[in-house]
Amino acid sequence: MTPRAKSALAEADVVLGYKTYLAQIEKHLQGKEIRSSTMTKELDRAGSALDLACAGKVTALVSGGDPGIYAMAGLVFELIAAREIPLGKGPDKLNVKVIPGVTAFTCAAAILGAPLNHDFASISLSTRLTPWEVITKKLDLAAQADFVIALYNPKSRGRDWQFNEALKIIGESRGPQTPVGIVQKASRPSEAVNLTTLKDAASAEVDMQTVVIIGNSRTYRYLDKMITPRGYKDKYDLSS
Amino acid sequence: MTPRAKSALAEADVVLGYKTYLAQIEKHLQGKEIRSSTMTKELDRAGSALDLACAGKVTALVSGGDPGIYAMAGLVFELIAAREIPLGKGPDKLNVKVIPGVTAFTCAAAILGAPLNHDFASISLSTRLTPWEVITKKLDLAAQADFVIALYNPKSRGRDWQFNEALKIIGESRGPQTPVGIVQKASRPSEAVNLTTLKDAASAEVDMQTVVIIGNSRTYRYLDKMITPRGYKDKYDLSS
Repeated sequence: MTPRAKSALAEADVVLGYKTYLAQIEKHLQGKEIRSSTMTKELDRAGSALDLACAGKVTALVSGGDPGIYAMAGLVFELIAAREIPLGKGPDKLNVKVIPGVTAFTCAAAILGAPLNHDFASISLSTRLTPWEVITKKLDLAAQADFVIALYNPKSRGRDWQFNEALKIIGESRGPQTPVGIVQKASRPSEAVNLTTLKDAASAEVDMQTVVIIGNSRTYRYLDKMITPRGYKDKYDLSS
Repeated sequence: MTPRAKSALAEADVVLGYKTYLAQIEKHLQGKEIRSSTMTKELDRAGSALDLACAGKVTALVSGGDPGIYAMAGLVFELIAAREIPLGKGPDKLNVKVIPGVTAFTCAAAILGAPLNHDFASISLSTRLTPWEVITKKLDLAAQADFVIALYNPKSRGRDWQFNEALKIIGESRGPQTPVGIVQKASRPSEAVNLTTLKDAASAEVDMQTVVIIGNSRTYRYLDKMITPRGYKDKYDLSS
C-alpha cells in the first residue's frame, strides 16, 4: 500500500470493498464504518459508495492492485456520468480522487525479471462484459504487432477454454519456445511462479488471480528470469 | 514510494540513480554512498550497480515509476545475462530483487479519471533503440485492435515529428473526437493536465516526461474526466 492510499483510508468515515481485500488491510480500518461485499457485487458496491459520498460521508472504495486497471475506478465514473453527478471541489459537488497503486502485471513482472521492458498490451480474457470475438481480434493483432502480452483473468470456474484458445491465436504469430511467465497471487504468501513456453503454457495452472505474461519475439530466458530486451545489445557491447 | 522501496533503500550501502530522481528522495539517503549520474548514462549506471553488487555491497539502483516499464530492470538483467552472472541466494551468487512501483501511466490515468479501464497497449515513441517502422506497425495494429493506447516518450529535444505522425496513424482507425488525455509530470508539483481530442492533440505540448492516453472507440468525456467503459452499461441500468 502506498502512503497516499494509507492517508486516504485514515481520512475516511466509511470503507467499502470486496471482503478478501478488506481482510488484508484490517489494521487500517479501526474505528471505521465497514461495508464489505462479495466478488461479483461490484455494481452495488460502487453505487453504495457514491450514495454515501453524495450524502456527505468521506468514503473510501478499496480496489486490489491499481483501481484504474480492470478495477473499480471505471465503474465509479461510469455511474457518475450516468447519474450526471457534478464533480469538483465546491459545495454540492463530489470530490473524487483516484489513488494509483501497484498493478498486478508490474508485480508479476518484477517477480519474473523484466518481461515488460518493451511495448506491451494488456488483455483481459473475461467474457462477462466483452464478447469473445472482440477479445480474439485483440489477441491476434497484439501478437502480430509483437507486443509483449499480459493476460488478465485467464480462467474462471465457469470459463475454462478461452486461455488455451488465446495461446493458440498468439502462437500463429509467435514461436513455440517464446517464454511465458505465469504468476499466481503476486506478492502474497501463497505466490506461485511458473516460467514456461508458449508450447507448454496450455497445461499450466491458472485462475482469476493469475497474470500471464507472454514474451515478444526477442524475449529470452536466463536462469529463472524472463527478459525482454530494450535493444541495447544491438548498439553496445554488454558483456564487458 | 512504497514501503518495500523504502526498506530496500534503508538496507542499501550504495544508492545509484539519475540525479533528478535521487534529489526527490534525498531524505532517505542519509549516510549512504551516493552515485548520481545524468539521463543518458543508464548503461554506465546499471554496469556500476552490478560491479558494486558483485563486490559485495548492498546496492540500490533507483528508477522513476516502475523499474520494469521502460526503466532500469530490463537493462540490469540484459547485463546479467550478457555477463553470465549467477543469480540466487547462495554464496558467489547475486541476489537481485525488482521492487515494483506505481508506473507513470497509472498515475496519469488516475488524474484523468478512468481511461485505462479496458484492454490497452503501451508504446514508446523513442527511436533511440527501436526503428520507427517497428513503432508505426505497433501503432497501426494497436489502433485497429481498438486498444486504449498509452504513449511514452512522445517527444524529445531532438525528435519532434513522431508524435504527430503517431496521431495520424491512430486516426486512420479512430475518430477525430476520440478523447486524448495528456499528463505532464504526473503527481509532481509542476503537474499539467490537458484533456483534448485526437484531432486537436497534435498542437498540445508534450515532452519526454509526458504520458499521452488515447481512448478507444467507446471512451467518452464527462466534465473534466476521461472514461473508458468496461461494458456495464450494455447489461445494466446505471442511471438509478
